[in-house]
Amino acid sequence: VQYKKEVKLNNGERIDSLERNGYGIIQNKDKFCFGMDAVLLSGFATVKKGGTAVDLCTGNGIIPILLEAKTEGSRFFGIEIQSEVCDMAKRSVELNDLSDKITIINEDINKIEKRTFGKVDIVTANPPYMKEFHGLKNPDDAKAIARHEIFCTLDDVCRVASELLPDGGKFYMVHRPSRLSEIISTLKNHRLEPKRVKPVYPYIDKEANMILIEAVKGAGVELKFEKPVIVYKEPGKYTDEIYEIYGY
Amino acid sequence: VQYKKEVKLNNGERIDSLERNGYGIIQNKDKFCFGMDAVLLSGFATVKKGGTAVDLCTGNGIIPILLEAKTEGSRFFGIEIQSEVCDMAKRSVELNDLSDKITIINEDINKIEKRTFGKVDIVTANPPYMKEFHGLKNPDDAKAIARHEIFCTLDDVCRVASELLPDGGKFYMVHRPSRLSEIISTLKNHRLEPKRVKPVYPYIDKEANMILIEAVKGAGVELKFEKPVIVYKEPGKYTDEIYEIYGY
Repeated sequence: VQYKKEVKLNNGERIDSLERNGYGIIQNKDKFCFGMDAVLLSGFATVKKGGTAVDLCTGNGIIPILLEAKTEGSRFFGIEIQSEVCDMAKRSVELNDLSDKITIINEDINKIEKRTFGKVDIVTANPPYMKEFHGLKNPDDAKAIARHEIFCTLDDVCRVASELLPDGGKFYMVHRPSRLSEIISTLKNHRLEPKRVKPVYPYIDKEANMILIEAVKGAGVELKFEKPVIVYKEPGKYTDEIYEIYGY
Repeated sequence: VQYKKEVKLNNGERIDSLERNGYGIIQNKDKFCFGMDAVLLSGFATVKKGGTAVDLCTGNGIIPILLEAKTEGSRFFGIEIQSEVCDMAKRSVELNDLSDKITIINEDINKIEKRTFGKVDIVTANPPYMKEFHGLKNPDDAKAIARHEIFCTLDDVCRVASELLPDGGKFYMVHRPSRLSEIISTLKNHRLEPKRVKPVYPYIDKEANMILIEAVKGAGVELKFEKPVIVYKEPGKYTDEIYEIYGY
């Protein structure tokens, strides 16, 4: 496969095709690989024509890259605290020649400054899902940092999203259903009112394992509980919905 | 059909079979008829052997009667504020000769006394779903009272459930998904932690129109998002799940 630009790959890295706009993404199974959660979130979020989107905890930049491909937004930002993972994201932006639309910033989300982004229309986040991390052997473990609330908590993510957004601005998050009750109370604490919930079931007869949430800053209480996403028809075989809507 | 005892029917009343234990229930389409929500709630709730269950806003007593039929609980209470509807419930209990197990009380849930019930294991509620009622023509309108928060609010229902339950006791409620965010924050305000959420979709490709919630008093935060209930396969035809699990 030929991508727009050539970039240097480090040890353990590979380029995977996104099967969309001819885009590729740099992955490293020891550091960061995107999952179905990022794909579903970027299908669930919408960016209006000319709009600006900020992705918190962007990892290898999968969400800004997919949003750039799928929407008519103009400006996309991705914030990632881990410098090595962030570097993968920056090189993926280069690989697809998207530097005029996507900016990747190596920063702690708790330290970013609102004025960096101009007017923000939406914020997205596929944050660490797990609350505590017992037995962390190596504090530099990139995968542990992506999965556990080591450098940012649910409250941080919601607070920062709310700070970046104007009233009426939208925050999209994918998270674990086991934390739904905390998620809803934390969003509300930051004036982010849940407006759409879409549960994701691996199979129709199993418990949900992900939840997609859209919250609107300063909105009234009234929520739509959307039709579920069912991921697999049978083991290894996606449902038509996943193939059709999400292009995988 | 022959029921256990004979009871007097008032104008506009009929007896419908519950197709379970030979039970019937008195209904009146101008006052109160039970819906799929009550049936699903009584399938979702569990009462342990010898346990006591209190149903708030019981209407014609459908939930205590179905729980008596489906569980090994010993004592069932139903509280209903509307005297005419409550009288239907009392006669349905008689009809099925269940007066030794089911007690129907004509009272405002805000005025009931905890000691009336002994140790309560679970509380159930299929409360009025709608927040406001504009244009109420007749304050005695039984159906309006069952549907709108005229005599009891979501907060009342959750507060009373919490008062009746010991720590570890379970509260089961069916409600509208549009109010999920309020429901979760109200439950938490009364130390009722949501533990199971089960969305009900009329069809698999439509928005959810009901949500079943189990909350446990004083429990930790961690929620199971159960497989969805899909009600209809095609218009007028229930899914196998509804036929099998709920017996209709």
